[in-house]
Amino acid sequence: MQQSPSTSRPQLGIGLIGTGFMGRAHALAFGSANAALELPARIHLAALADADSARAEQCAQAWGFDRSHADWQQLVEDPRVQIVAITTPNHLHFPMAMAAIAAGKAVYCEKPLAVSLAQADEMQRSAKAAGVVTQVGYNYQHNPMIGLAREMIEAGELGDIVSFQGEFSEDFMGSATSPWSWRCEAAHAGGALADLGSHLLAMARYLLGDIEAVCADANTVHSQRPASPGSNEMRAIAVDDQTHALLRFASGARGTFSSSWLKHGYKNHLSFEISGTQGTLTYDQERLNELRIYRPGAPGRDGFQRLLAGPAQPGYAAFCPAPGHQLGYNELKALEVQALILAVCGQGSRGPDFEEAWQIERLATAIRLAAHEQRWVALDDI
Amino acid sequence: MQQSPSTSRPQLGIGLIGTGFMGRAHALAFGSANAALELPARIHLAALADADSARAEQCAQAWGFDRSHADWQQLVEDPRVQIVAITTPNHLHFPMAMAAIAAGKAVYCEKPLAVSLAQADEMQRSAKAAGVVTQVGYNYQHNPMIGLAREMIEAGELGDIVSFQGEFSEDFMGSATSPWSWRCEAAHAGGALADLGSHLLAMARYLLGDIEAVCADANTVHSQRPASPGSNEMRAIAVDDQTHALLRFASGARGTFSSSWLKHGYKNHLSFEISGTQGTLTYDQERLNELRIYRPGAPGRDGFQRLLAGPAQPGYAAFCPAPGHQLGYNELKALEVQALILAVCGQGSRGPDFEEAWQIERLATAIRLAAHEQRWVALDDI
Amino acid sequence: MQQSPSTSRPQLGIGLIGTGFMGRAHALAFGSANAALELPARIHLAALADADSARAEQCAQAWGFDRSHADWQQLVEDPRVQIVAITTPNHLHFPMAMAAIAAGKAVYCEKPLAVSLAQADEMQRSAKAAGVVTQVGYNYQHNPMIGLAREMIEAGELGDIVSFQGEFSEDFMGSATSPWSWRCEAAHAGGALADLGSHLLAMARYLLGDIEAVCADANTVHSQRPASPGSNEMRAIAVDDQTHALLRFASGARGTFSSSWLKHGYKNHLSFEISGTQGTLTYDQERLNELRIYRPGAPGRDGFQRLLAGPAQPGYAAFCPAPGHQLGYNELKALEVQALILAVCGQGSRGPDFEEAWQIERLATAIRLAAHEQRWVALDDI
Amino acid sequence: MQQSPSTSRPQLGIGLIGTGFMGRAHALAFGSANAALELPARIHLAALADADSARAEQCAQAWGFDRSHADWQQLVEDPRVQIVAITTPNHLHFPMAMAAIAAGKAVYCEKPLAVSLAQADEMQRSAKAAGVVTQVGYNYQHNPMIGLAREMIEAGELGDIVSFQGEFSEDFMGSATSPWSWRCEAAHAGGALADLGSHLLAMARYLLGDIEAVCADANTVHSQRPASPGSNEMRAIAVDDQTHALLRFASGARGTFSSSWLKHGYKNHLSFEISGTQGTLTYDQERLNELRIYRPGAPGRDGFQRLLAGPAQPGYAAFCPAPGHQLGYNELKALEVQALILAVCGQGSRGPDFEEAWQIERLATAIRLAAHEQRWVALDDI
Repeated sequence: MQQSPSTSRPQLGIGLIGTGFMGRAHALAFGSANAALELPARIHLAALADADSARAEQCAQAWGFDRSHADWQQLVEDPRVQIVAITTPNHLHFPMAMAAIAAGKAVYCEKPLAVSLAQADEMQRSAKAAGVVTQVGYNYQHNPMIGLAREMIEAGELGDIVSFQGEFSEDFMGSATSPWSWRCEAAHAGGALADLGSHLLAMARYLLGDIEAVCADANTVHSQRPASPGSNEMRAIAVDDQTHALLRFASGARGTFSSSWLKHGYKNHLSFEISGTQGTLTYDQERLNELRIYRPGAPGRDGFQRLLAGPAQPGYAAFCPAPGHQLGYNELKALEVQALILAVCGQGSRGPDFEEAWQIERLATAIRLAAHEQRWVALDDI
Repeated sequence: MQQSPSTSRPQLGIGLIGTGFMGRAHALAFGSANAALELPARIHLAALADADSARAEQCAQAWGFDRSHADWQQLVEDPRVQIVAITTPNHLHFPMAMAAIAAGKAVYCEKPLAVSLAQADEMQRSAKAAGVVTQVGYNYQHNPMIGLAREMIEAGELGDIVSFQGEFSEDFMGSATSPWSWRCEAAHAGGALADLGSHLLAMARYLLGDIEAVCADANTVHSQRPASPGSNEMRAIAVDDQTHALLRFASGARGTFSSSWLKHGYKNHLSFEISGTQGTLTYDQERLNELRIYRPGAPGRDGFQRLLAGPAQPGYAAFCPAPGHQLGYNELKALEVQALILAVCGQGSRGPDFEEAWQIERLATAIRLAAHEQRWVALDDI
Repeated sequence: MQQSPSTSRPQLGIGLIGTGFMGRAHALAFGSANAALELPARIHLAALADADSARAEQCAQAWGFDRSHADWQQLVEDPRVQIVAITTPNHLHFPMAMAAIAAGKAVYCEKPLAVSLAQADEMQRSAKAAGVVTQVGYNYQHNPMIGLAREMIEAGELGDIVSFQGEFSEDFMGSATSPWSWRCEAAHAGGALADLGSHLLAMARYLLGDIEAVCADANTVHSQRPASPGSNEMRAIAVDDQTHALLRFASGARGTFSSSWLKHGYKNHLSFEISGTQGTLTYDQERLNELRIYRPGAPGRDGFQRLLAGPAQPGYAAFCPAPGHQLGYNELKALEVQALILAVCGQGSRGPDFEEAWQIERLATAIRLAAHEQRWVALDDI
Repeated sequence: MQQSPSTSRPQLGIGLIGTGFMGRAHALAFGSANAALELPARIHLAALADADSARAEQCAQAWGFDRSHADWQQLVEDPRVQIVAITTPNHLHFPMAMAAIAAGKAVYCEKPLAVSLAQADEMQRSAKAAGVVTQVGYNYQHNPMIGLAREMIEAGELGDIVSFQGEFSEDFMGSATSPWSWRCEAAHAGGALADLGSHLLAMARYLLGDIEAVCADANTVHSQRPASPGSNEMRAIAVDDQTHALLRFASGARGTFSSSWLKHGYKNHLSFEISGTQGTLTYDQERLNELRIYRPGAPGRDGFQRLLAGPAQPGYAAFCPAPGHQLGYNELKALEVQALILAVCGQGSRGPDFEEAWQIERLATAIRLAAHEQRWVALDDI
């Protein structure tokens, strides 16, 4: 950590790999975090890497990075970089993260951690051995309303948790003519379960802890898709369009899980209902500033209550001083960055780190196995 | 069928057994059907039976029945009765329905059909052999909005059906102090799956047809409950408080199923989402006059649309001439009565009849077995 | 009141005039009230009148009336009739009600009470002088959820009432080709304010009491309409398509009022928000079994709560033993009938009676005057 | 405009006055606009002013400004500043904006433009005379969903506009113990109408154009408030707690207006319904990523449709590539900054500029006069 000349706070140099949508989301988040959030260190945009050197340089200038690299390995080795942020396609997470760990850098990697459980395991073990801070981009759990949900559950406001109904559906693959992409390749961690469902598994674990056993059913609705938009060439599709599962939590709670990328009408429908012996809580990410809560009351005077995000939740207060003004997707990312900086500065780990991301991959693997073999699978057997 | 003196329409005599909530709901429904619905025969309230003869007579007068019986067998044999309506506790459905079938009467029986699959099978076979008309009180499917949902699905408006997410939750057993009742006894067809879930299974079959295989998980959250309200005497509970399942439809659709009687906040939450290759449809019975539908459209101009019940649906038009005025629970029952009268008069069977009710019981049995043995169960094996 | 031979309760003979939609709604409501509601007297369907004698007889048989009349005056004079129910076009309310009052009968009249304020005043004075019980069909206020709203307001749960935002919009005249009907004639108490707005005025008075002063704006959007569906003949329209107003309540509360019959998308949108120093309450009649309530709470833990109709409200309990099952439009009418029977039996007047209906007409007259003269109008000046 | 050394785009230096919530919101917005939005010039954070020099320097460093000033006049005169952004209390808008205009700088001023109509008029005339670009922070109209609403209205998708129901309510002054602040002083442009209502008037004009005449009612519910939180010293309050009004648009549309800062339960409830001869559109800013639209359709198949913000709207696409991910309050501010930069670069004025802000003040003045004199007021007379 370098001392900034103009302030007593240390400075952390970011090396960002990737300039796609998620790269820009990172850039936006670093800037917003610096401007709006209390951070123990100042974020410095040290370097940006993209294999296309012209694009790398253009984005570096547009986004405020000091320099650009066409070779990500140079970025990893750059001494001005203390945190390596990885936003490249999934199959590159492993080599990039392993190199960063080897260089002793903190790693901030987009989900999924890797394209195989073995890779994910090696990554988490290596990070632990090297003692580097890691964080994986399950950004939705940095939503202050999710933080509130967790507080309520932990404080026992819902009593003992009895059930979980969770779903993450979108419809971007809803049409039979939605074309093939790398997301359709199992070797790139494709399919609805990996792409969307993993966010929901992360959420379920974040809120309710370990899952012990799963049973599942997965299927491919469109077994071939155009090779590109409008193409007549068709490619066979082997990954799941949708996966449904039953979940048994270590706590005794039971539930259902659904993940689909072809459920028409849904655009960002990570939703859940969590019910306990004292109440029920529901969330739908298409309205990410809201939570609905029910607690038993006098007959005729009880009912679900809509909670609107407001400054009573610290992450919200940093961006808006009054309730009802609403955070957006990008601010969840900025809050994720804040968690990262806190962790790198040794001020608590809100995660999820590589170990937790590996647990999420284990769970997804168990679901895939359960669907494949049409039987219950215990997590202990994965 | 007797000729009514004052009209050319024939008259059908009803013999109603039971004077509890459901008995009164039948009485209300017969009256509303007569006054509001087009019927090929006039309903005549011939006789009412209750083991408590004073209550039988009091209710008969209040509800407009010609006479009362303390002995239901007399009612069944009464030549003025053409339709026997059974609203007694579940374990009595079998002897009463069998007697009515033996007497050649049409039978209108509340759900569940029986307290065992063997009974249900015997009842449906006997009815078929005797050639009597039967109908079982899965009243929710007589909701005009459910009729509209079925029309849309059958007309292919949603394309090929891909997924079903269904839930029927209430919370009347939500408290650990909610007392034991006959609903807590497996021998009386108790438990959340039988009590609530069976309505959802009926709905799933009504809308999407046969289910081929199921996997399930069931559990009892409160393993003992007070013997009566406020009692210190506790009774052990063996039936499910909640059941979750995976469903595979013969059509290829896949889905999830949840049923609970302790999910806080829900009062009549029979809800489902049905998604196909061309759209999605959602329903929540706590707003029974609404249906939400999504069809893909121009980007930024599509979205879920709320349909409000209105006179475009025939069953609604009979009760309200303008949309937005809303039917209530009791009017669904009157529409069920209309279906019954049409069936008895040979004008089509909208059902569900005893055979369909037996199929629903088979499905519930498969779910119970799958939960018990923690494995997938094929319906063909039941 | 005659003694019924078969029960100790007295019997009240109904004479119903009119066989249109509202006539049938009355018939349904009498039947449901008899079967489901606790009444101090049994309702007896004594006579039905319609100028078309064949139709009168046919409906009498279908709906269970003892006899029919082509001449409504015979019905009014029939000694078996104790209550005259008037469901004819608005301009007939006056002569029929006046005849019934003269005959010493109770009168149950649909809204609006009359086609002029002078008529309404004469009707209420005559009824008072004759000492007969009267009731006017502002049925929406018999909704148990409206009863709950009034209880809450009266108990001070919202503190001092500060504001009222009310609207009653439908869209049945939304198209320029929606044809002329008697509702388009001022002489028949036509226009959106009289047809729909008067329900909202009744509600505002029922919940918040007297209104002292109004200012208003009214306009006719389609100044001519086809004489009949599809006709090329156009008729000039003078009544309002929409009226907006400001209201000042005697209590000090202030508010807005809107009434339209051409606001697209609304089918039965009688809605209001009532806010006080301690909370806010909202209602939308397109979901008549719901009420939303807000009370200040801990920051981040407060929010609007949805109350679902349930048996905690007596009127609901009579029809459904569990919450969430929902009443329909016709059951509100049955609850209105119960209020009528209680009033006729001297057990309290829930109203609104002719005097209250005249007050509602006075208010509508003030709004019309304010709109015409584009100035504030004090109710004392009407 | 300076040429940036590292790119062909020119650079615009921002001088920001004020470091409160709105100052930080500006800083965030400049950063996000630079990183995410297509701008014809690069934004350069040249200088920050605050009367408290230590705070000015601290914020300058935290937010990335090159230098700080305790004296705002120095900032205005700084040649590196091309745009003066004013986020100070309302009574300072006038001197600061006039100085900036005199210096030939573009002015970006928070609302309301001034504390009197005379000031606002002088400001707009001066800006016009000086030929400087101006923009006022009615940020809510930069919401892409509001842009969509305007597109729909302008394209005639709703037909001729018939009615407007608008409300902007919050509850931050809901308690009698909510203390006095400068917002309670008329001389500082206080009161619910000025503070909140002006946003709604801006919106009404943006969507539907000129308003010709108004009638209004305003009142102060709590006529005194504590001088500070918890204080026993009470201050008399003369400004409105709530204002209701009737609006007549030049287009012929009519409507209602409500503005309150003590309507419990509302946190950011700028809402409206706009209805025309072909459809209706509704919006509630507590869900700023949504719009509801109704167009007449086949009976039983029409209904309100929820549109979710998505990349079909350009402003959204810049921040999120997929629908349903949601913009937040701060991104509306960044879009406002984009409009400003486009205007300064001569690429169209999306406004509102000082002239439009003066029109909004004229309208608010007319409403205040109409409420005070209890009569209709024509805008031509203001």
